Amino acid sequence: MEVEISESVPFYDTDCGGVVSNIAYLRYVEKARMALFSRLGMDASTMTETGIFPTVIRTEIDYRSPARLGDVIRITAHLTSVEKVRTICAYRLTVDAGAGRERTICEAVQTVALVQMPSGRPKRIPEAWSRLL
Amino acid sequence: MEVEISESVPFYDTDCGGVVSNIAYLRYVEKARMALFSRLGMDASTMTETGIFPTVIRTEIDYRSPARLGDVIRITAHLTSVEKVRTICAYRLTVDAGAGRERTICEAVQTVALVQMPSGRPKRIPEAWSRLL
Amino acid sequence: MEVEISESVPFYDTDCGGVVSNIAYLRYVEKARMALFSRLGMDASTMTETGIFPTVIRTEIDYRSPARLGDVIRITAHLTSVEKVRTICAYRLTVDAGAGRERTICEAVQTVALVQMPSGRPKRIPEAWSRLL
Amino acid sequence: MEVEISESVPFYDTDCGGVVSNIAYLRYVEKARMALFSRLGMDASTMTETGIFPTVIRTEIDYRSPARLGDVIRITAHLTSVEKVRTICAYRLTVDAGAGRERTICEAVQTVALVQMPSGRPKRIPEAWSRLL
Repeated sequence: MEVEISESVPFYDTDCGGVVSNIAYLRYVEKARMALFSRLGMDASTMTETGIFPTVIRTEIDYRSPARLGDVIRITAHLTSVEKVRTICAYRLTVDAGAGRERTICEAVQTVALVQMPSGRPKRIPEAWSRLL
Repeated sequence: MEVEISESVPFYDTDCGGVVSNIAYLRYVEKARMALFSRLGMDASTMTETGIFPTVIRTEIDYRSPARLGDVIRITAHLTSVEKVRTICAYRLTVDAGAGRERTICEAVQTVALVQMPSGRPKRIPEAWSRLL
Repeated sequence: MEVEISESVPFYDTDCGGVVSNIAYLRYVEKARMALFSRLGMDASTMTETGIFPTVIRTEIDYRSPARLGDVIRITAHLTSVEKVRTICAYRLTVDAGAGRERTICEAVQTVALVQMPSGRPKRIPEAWSRLL
Repeated sequence: MEVEISESVPFYDTDCGGVVSNIAYLRYVEKARMALFSRLGMDASTMTETGIFPTVIRTEIDYRSPARLGDVIRITAHLTSVEKVRTICAYRLTVDAGAGRERTICEAVQTVALVQMPSGRPKRIPEAWSRLL
């Protein structure tokens, strides 16, 4: 199971180096993660009702090539591992490079726990998710 | 001529008050402004090629009612005035309130100049734009 | 009563136009507002305990001159009006222009209400604040 | 050689989970990185003059414990490795936990290259930096 979204780069995601700020890519990653968890049955309104929020406990991100103002970035997300109290999500950000090819902008991996707020207690990851790898 | 985009509220646009941060709405406004200028013939790649950028010189924003995580916000933008070296854009942000009604989240007005970078010199607003009011 | 803070411009507050993003200045304004309300007896921990949060209901901001990476921006904030359920705050952002002079970056005015969360009910502005104008 | 800065958590860095957004910590990391490179002789005005910018090519961040509105976060940064065209920076974010103890909020490691803009060509890391490990 893989989700895919796309985002067009606005001014506020670029910086004075002329390219997208390293921090801004994590906004695209967050939107893809929300799309992924929505597909897993945890959309925003479910989170708000249950008080259970996917919580990032580790991020790794490799910046391969810069994106620029107006670029349309395609972000894919999928689960790569499902453990008792954490799951691992992998992301790939690309832009169309013409001629049917794509250029990789960055790749990221996040470890995510499900946390019951406001107590902050971790919840078991649903077993069913391991069948979606 | 009016453009319309929609944005779903991610975590990073909310704050610990439980609602969307007053600052985050200006990101939605910026995306709508980029869509409006794109329709006026100034998309991101044109801006980059010509070095002419729409530059906000004044913003007014009235916050009417809070939006929350996952809300789908509809943002409309249109020109309300076209002068020699500045144009005025008006924005309306709403969410679906059910039963065919909508709730206004905020309303904003921005004064925008066209600025030649890197000199910073203002450019004349194209006369044709006044026919789009 | 006036508060003053200063912020040095990081990469993430600039955009590909080479100057500070119009949105980023509102982050400096928010920090100055928090300093002002802290001086008024509402610091972050008091807000969290009481559930009463200063809530921006209108912002006006005029952009006078651009700031750049590394500029040290001085932000002053003070109350200009105290009414029953709202107060008005004015901000001035400047940078040192050498020779004892300063350059105005932007000026902003915000209307702020005190809101009891999570009910969202407005609270009376403390009368004592009107003696601080 | 280690630099240290501190940042107080504003509203815009928190999210509706009631704690600091995972993305916001990278803003504190960026400010600490700018302080570190400034100490290494590359402050913002030097970057702008030379067109050489420290560019993040990889980030790893582990979230240990949440920070909240108003928390004063201490961020330390130092170099842990200096190679031909890249250097590695390590960061630690903590808050005062009372009784002389501190609580770790997150730990991060970034691989940074020096890039000549606008060509995008990597530059040699100054050899002198290896004596600062």
